[in-house]
Amino acid sequence: MKKLINNAEQVVEEMLQGAVLAHPQYVKRVEGFNVLVRANSPVQGKVALVSGGGSGHEPSHAGYVGRGMLDGAVAGAVFTSPTPDQVYEAVKAVDGGKGVLLVIKNYTGDIMNFEMATEMAEADGIKVAKVVVNDDVAVENSTWTTGRRGIAGTVFVHKIAGAKAETGADLAEVQKTAEKVIANVRSMGMALSPCIVPAAGKPSFTLAENEAEIGMGIHGEPGTHRETVRPADETAEHLVNKILADMSLDAGDEAAVMINGLGGTPLMELYVINRKVAAMLAERNIKIAKTYIGNYMTSLEMAGFSVTVLKLDSELKELLFAQADTPALVQF
Amino acid sequence: MKKLINNAEQVVEEMLQGAVLAHPQYVKRVEGFNVLVRANSPVQGKVALVSGGGSGHEPSHAGYVGRGMLDGAVAGAVFTSPTPDQVYEAVKAVDGGKGVLLVIKNYTGDIMNFEMATEMAEADGIKVAKVVVNDDVAVENSTWTTGRRGIAGTVFVHKIAGAKAETGADLAEVQKTAEKVIANVRSMGMALSPCIVPAAGKPSFTLAENEAEIGMGIHGEPGTHRETVRPADETAEHLVNKILADMSLDAGDEAAVMINGLGGTPLMELYVINRKVAAMLAERNIKIAKTYIGNYMTSLEMAGFSVTVLKLDSELKELLFAQADTPALVQF
Repeated sequence: MKKLINNAEQVVEEMLQGAVLAHPQYVKRVEGFNVLVRANSPVQGKVALVSGGGSGHEPSHAGYVGRGMLDGAVAGAVFTSPTPDQVYEAVKAVDGGKGVLLVIKNYTGDIMNFEMATEMAEADGIKVAKVVVNDDVAVENSTWTTGRRGIAGTVFVHKIAGAKAETGADLAEVQKTAEKVIANVRSMGMALSPCIVPAAGKPSFTLAENEAEIGMGIHGEPGTHRETVRPADETAEHLVNKILADMSLDAGDEAAVMINGLGGTPLMELYVINRKVAAMLAERNIKIAKTYIGNYMTSLEMAGFSVTVLKLDSELKELLFAQADTPALVQF
Repeated sequence: MKKLINNAEQVVEEMLQGAVLAHPQYVKRVEGFNVLVRANSPVQGKVALVSGGGSGHEPSHAGYVGRGMLDGAVAGAVFTSPTPDQVYEAVKAVDGGKGVLLVIKNYTGDIMNFEMATEMAEADGIKVAKVVVNDDVAVENSTWTTGRRGIAGTVFVHKIAGAKAETGADLAEVQKTAEKVIANVRSMGMALSPCIVPAAGKPSFTLAENEAEIGMGIHGEPGTHRETVRPADETAEHLVNKILADMSLDAGDEAAVMINGLGGTPLMELYVINRKVAAMLAERNIKIAKTYIGNYMTSLEMAGFSVTVLKLDSELKELLFAQADTPALVQF
């Protein structure tokens, strides 16, 4: 295992320290916990957003803490749900009196722990609502999931619900907007290589020299099938067809597109993929309002990508384009 | 070779098409050439900046085309200098009457071809100036370089000279500011793995399972030595000590820091590295004005990183913090 780390057991702790040192203008640590919140938390008079999950998906989620997106991010161990007390601390640290929306990716452990945290916070009199993101069209149920997995589409939920919260909307309204994003967003990914969880020290699965896994999850969960690596256009076409078959996106509709790298994919290749994705949407007369290309929801050093398509209406478009300011290298 | 491409010979062409489809609000193609310029080029009454070089370093350089940074970027074949006619077309497309500054990384082929383009443009009556970036402290001379190589520090030249140009400064002033950045910036990198140039189909070198190359260039040029992979803190310490030994940065001085991923490095690891880099600068009482963490100047899917330190004065700091708007996922 070749990694730029000091100690597999300390990697999340050291990452969080490095993040606070890098971005003190954006984030601060909730002392004693693996929680980063906005430097000016709690923001009064605004619904707060908290997300999180296992580490290893950076810049998700701490990279999206900042004005116009999240208020707090909880970092579990690598690919492991954060514990309820960590989520509870995040909720307490960001609540500015208007309540807290939890944005949860659909994994069984995450849902259980975020729900326990909700009960703890509600016992303190904090209003909490939650949404569950399940944008991955590849498979129903999976290694750690009942129903569909939540993957890169989650970042659109952060952006749009975060922008809604900045307008002064109340908790029910922010939740409703987040649910609209979830209803309108679909994703699917594929991998050319596995990744290595530091504490495990070896890949959780292997692929042959010319083999790809289609529909794989962001923790290396199995996808729909394995196949010989195909030309980029064919791979993109397969994913986009699966996505479009699952959503109601008609000629004349408008969408946002994300070509998300999983951590080990050259940006060059993501642009080659986008060429085909954009052409497929153009053929269907679907207007692309904005395209996001880069590493938004990664799987450590995994090589591969996902495509996300978000159907826009006027509310979602306005909130997507609203200004945001976060540490992540994100063109929002 | 596992890559998300269609055809090794078409990869730059398809990348450029994908980039224009992704970012039409930022960039347009100079028809018939591998040149991307601002969508509103030429911008009148402003010195224009052109950079470029071999492809494979994305988001360098086309990702930095936009308000406050570059006006044009020239994309050579992968790891290969762009030809003089391509650079010449970029210069013609962006000149708004106040002249063009070429920002060249110090590689022999790049310098030769950018200089030939300069002669062609000057014959047309276009004012052209150039600066050569040589921030890599690892080695003097190298596979394709006389003197030191230009690496990630180049991005600071784009940002700061680009901001200077937006102020309406003339060509000599913008050049002078760019030269000040070059005088004040130092970098050094290391690699855990090689990368594969698509047309070659195999790595240009190999590293043993537990081996790292220290001081390696962004095209895989040899560094200072190979060694067994060490803990991240020791590796960071070695690089930062080499950098600081080569620049005049004293207690009380202010600096910007970039922890640059080479394309295949998890963001988690870059944050672990930053923890040590920030601590080393704090020990020396050097104030970090801003830290940039992510993939700014890559080597396809190479695993590894570089550290860049830029000594700031009041002019450089103001220009570094000035607003910019480009396609790259860059927190500038």
